[in-house]
Amino acid sequence: MNLLLLEDADFVAADRVILRDRRLKHLQEVHRAESGDSLRVGRLNGLMGRGQLLRLDTQEAELQISLDQPPPAKLPLTLLLALPRPKMLRRVLQTVASMGVPRLILLNSYRVEKSFWQTPFLEPAAIHEQLILGLEQARDTRLPQVLIEKRFKPFVEDRLPQLAAGSLGLVGHPGDYPACPRAVEQPVTLAIGPEGGWIPYEVEKLHAAGLQPVQLGERILRVETAVTALIARLF
Amino acid sequence: MNLLLLEDADFVAADRVILRDRRLKHLQEVHRAESGDSLRVGRLNGLMGRGQLLRLDTQEAELQISLDQPPPAKLPLTLLLALPRPKMLRRVLQTVASMGVPRLILLNSYRVEKSFWQTPFLEPAAIHEQLILGLEQARDTRLPQVLIEKRFKPFVEDRLPQLAAGSLGLVGHPGDYPACPRAVEQPVTLAIGPEGGWIPYEVEKLHAAGLQPVQLGERILRVETAVTALIARLF
Repeated sequence: MNLLLLEDADFVAADRVILRDRRLKHLQEVHRAESGDSLRVGRLNGLMGRGQLLRLDTQEAELQISLDQPPPAKLPLTLLLALPRPKMLRRVLQTVASMGVPRLILLNSYRVEKSFWQTPFLEPAAIHEQLILGLEQARDTRLPQVLIEKRFKPFVEDRLPQLAAGSLGLVGHPGDYPACPRAVEQPVTLAIGPEGGWIPYEVEKLHAAGLQPVQLGERILRVETAVTALIARLF
Repeated sequence: MNLLLLEDADFVAADRVILRDRRLKHLQEVHRAESGDSLRVGRLNGLMGRGQLLRLDTQEAELQISLDQPPPAKLPLTLLLALPRPKMLRRVLQTVASMGVPRLILLNSYRVEKSFWQTPFLEPAAIHEQLILGLEQARDTRLPQVLIEKRFKPFVEDRLPQLAAGSLGLVGHPGDYPACPRAVEQPVTLAIGPEGGWIPYEVEKLHAAGLQPVQLGERILRVETAVTALIARLF
């Protein structure tokens, strides 16, 4: 936790918060914080700054807050991701939040196991929790938007073309395709497939919606590694 | 497992292997393989090719093997990594193997907790296991070399200068430094710090050994994410 992220409900006055949850425990056990300490804080979807610890006991921590810095810029990226397996999903949500992706669309694909859609990690509170962990890691305050699209064809045919319009549309896919571009300056819509990859029909459909296939070399990367590698190369 | 990786002990003839372990289970439960199936195989530190499943039962699988393709090229990179916490270490070893890093040096740093050096995940068999998983993921056969350096100062003062000679030496470190270069063509020696970063003394010592500090933006990434992002940007 490189940033103590504050939510509206924490505020007891305009410049004062009281914490009682996971963050209190983290302050005590990991930061070993003491009264008087100054910590990096941010307000969810708002500014960042410093918090001075007024008191800390087993029940609660009270901090005086001063917020004056904007959070880091987000990437000009919409990321479409075939729904990963539940354990990977949690880590990918953290990665997406920490790397500054502003919008993530979790999409069905032929190779997404049906059971993945049943995971409790897809519930809004569970998604929120992982995104918060990613923001705390990276020192950002703005929650990414996460959309869930359980039907591939209607989404890709009817909505993706408008969504990708005006952006550089890319599909990460192994094969005889151009290499993924580097250091692009325009907005990007990037689709990354499931373990085992998109099937040819899906690559065609994504292509018809305006996304060009690009590859990242011979090596097959785990989804989380591919997400990080493609984003790091693109921006 | 995108490649079935074979070790010398698996061979019962020049073109025949018998498997009885984790890989047998994986063939049955994940691949749902059957007699006659053709699978991608590779020989550890050797060539890749195809294996035809001659028989498969609850005890063992027998395959006929034909190997004729070289594994993918490794990156021209020596990666120095402050020893991560045990859980992260396992994932980083997989990531390093799957991305094609040929040499990893696990190094001490002021912010590496002493207890991390006690983990069973640092034992040679445990390191080997994670590297194999990474190679199977990426479809590579050549094991990276992993070196362990428990003393920062003697390693960085006495051995790093020769080790980094003739390469582009870089230290990933947040701060007012040049951005990490992109698409380099020469060999690279890259040092990545622990959670919380290198301390200034360590950055100075690494710099004196020929490694220039470079940064990757304002966001603080987890070690595993930073490793992937820096490598994807460099090569």
